[in-house]
Amino acid sequence: MSEELKEKIVSRVVGDLQQIETELAENLHPYLELVSEIARHILFSGGKRLRPLLMVISARLCGYNGGFVHKFSTIFEYLHAATLLHDDLVDGAAIRRGRPVAHTVWDPATVVLVGDFLLARSLTIAAETGRSRVIRVIAEITENMSQGEIQQLLNKGSARLSEDDYMEVIRRKTAVLFQGACRVSGILADVSEQQELALAEYGGNLGLAFQMADDLLDYTVDSEKLGKLVGADLREGKLTLPVISSLKQAGGSDRWQMVEIIRNRDFSPEEFQWLIERLQKYGGIDYTRKRARDHIEIAKQALTNFEDSADKQLLLDIADYALLRQM
Amino acid sequence: MSEELKEKIVSRVVGDLQQIETELAENLHPYLELVSEIARHILFSGGKRLRPLLMVISARLCGYNGGFVHKFSTIFEYLHAATLLHDDLVDGAAIRRGRPVAHTVWDPATVVLVGDFLLARSLTIAAETGRSRVIRVIAEITENMSQGEIQQLLNKGSARLSEDDYMEVIRRKTAVLFQGACRVSGILADVSEQQELALAEYGGNLGLAFQMADDLLDYTVDSEKLGKLVGADLREGKLTLPVISSLKQAGGSDRWQMVEIIRNRDFSPEEFQWLIERLQKYGGIDYTRKRARDHIEIAKQALTNFEDSADKQLLLDIADYALLRQM
Repeated sequence: MSEELKEKIVSRVVGDLQQIETELAENLHPYLELVSEIARHILFSGGKRLRPLLMVISARLCGYNGGFVHKFSTIFEYLHAATLLHDDLVDGAAIRRGRPVAHTVWDPATVVLVGDFLLARSLTIAAETGRSRVIRVIAEITENMSQGEIQQLLNKGSARLSEDDYMEVIRRKTAVLFQGACRVSGILADVSEQQELALAEYGGNLGLAFQMADDLLDYTVDSEKLGKLVGADLREGKLTLPVISSLKQAGGSDRWQMVEIIRNRDFSPEEFQWLIERLQKYGGIDYTRKRARDHIEIAKQALTNFEDSADKQLLLDIADYALLRQM
Repeated sequence: MSEELKEKIVSRVVGDLQQIETELAENLHPYLELVSEIARHILFSGGKRLRPLLMVISARLCGYNGGFVHKFSTIFEYLHAATLLHDDLVDGAAIRRGRPVAHTVWDPATVVLVGDFLLARSLTIAAETGRSRVIRVIAEITENMSQGEIQQLLNKGSARLSEDDYMEVIRRKTAVLFQGACRVSGILADVSEQQELALAEYGGNLGLAFQMADDLLDYTVDSEKLGKLVGADLREGKLTLPVISSLKQAGGSDRWQMVEIIRNRDFSPEEFQWLIERLQKYGGIDYTRKRARDHIEIAKQALTNFEDSADKQLLLDIADYALLRQM
């Protein structure tokens, strides 16, 4: 079901994806070869290009015909790549998409600076739109993402996180970028305020659901498929919704032992398996799926502000896919 | 002479400096207290506010009366602070302005993210100017600065650097920000292209001379006055013009011994003193002073494109001060 829907989506955007790839390669032009090398390591490592794709499809939905849409869409992939470089460093991650992360291959200091370069590229291209509201959106996304990541860092290891704490982090670190990708299309196309807000609502809620689904993978998929170690979030001290909501329901020795595993971080595969069973028992996995589904419903609902079209259907399908994806 | 000129300059900009301080504090508004704390550590640690000041004076020189000039000038201090946070981490510096650097007080990962936040603040404020050319200049500055710093990192430890290599690094890592601060005023004030380029020429050459003078301090001023360890550049493997030009002139065993000290990095105070004597003997210190003076002359010459005024005199005085400053 998931693979079928993915095929259906990809077949309709294959031309867009090719153009996005071309623009990503062509708009990098750094002065230093090393920058290009590190940037390519993160940029061309099997990313789904979901953020630029959302921008391109949203732009078409809005009837945007100002040109350069695939070029402008690179803003969101460069920004995403920049934050991945800094975040992997912050998280002390070792593997992403099945490959060693950049700061284990190159000097971490250089990787920080390449992140800065990609951030700057993203803003240079945003400036080329000639629309200061676009730039304001991009700059605000960056403010949010850096603070979301810091908040996540501050939350580390705490077994007392609430669902609100979790939502605040994923809103800032993930949802604002999806929201921005959709909203910027509306700004470029000069749609009504109502439609612009509808696009923001679609993107923001899709982003929330996407992150929830991503956080679920740590408890539902094996390492090989995931391209990184399962249980990685917990090992980093990162509590996500499946755990937070299960902890809220659990009591007695179950709760006590769950907290022990979380605090320990250096748990065995058996302990991790035991924890997953508790997440099932206390409904944390189902609850997270349900919350993700709720946000997808809100996202899809927002699109009622647009007439039916092939592009609208594509956005609806992408929303459904966000829930189903296995990696 | 230096202190007298400084007093003379400061007495004429005391109001501007106060307004800049106020705007720096007021425009930070982060969501997290920790971000504010780290940002304040770097922002309010005795910086000279030279970059925002250059913008404010240039704007007045251009007859800019669009308001918010002190607010807009914070763009350049936030950007400067962002790069200091990342660069100190990259350089492995321990002390700046007599205080421990941020990444030795807080988690380095958090410091990287606070740098991102300050960069984003700078761009949000740039977007508030409503002028996409301003934003393009700021984004390009960031691209240049990150790459200049990477280039410097790649150059580390090499005893074969040329003067051209050195100039390329300081142009990107320092001069473009000074250049941008002056140029953006011209853009905001809608001056002629000729005047805008003249401002860029003034700022860019001032920046080059400023960095050269800064690099000289490592060989001419004692630690206490400098607020950091002398010889720090060499200990980091960073070759600057006084050394590069002396190496070019030196021959025989002097050259060989100089290269030994540079490669060793863990030199004794006596070895460092010996090296300074060689920099004097082979004219590297004088040569650097002369080159800095040349750039100051070009900077001052560029201002002939503006009618005489108190603000023009202030920019001329600042140019002179850049050469004389002892810290």
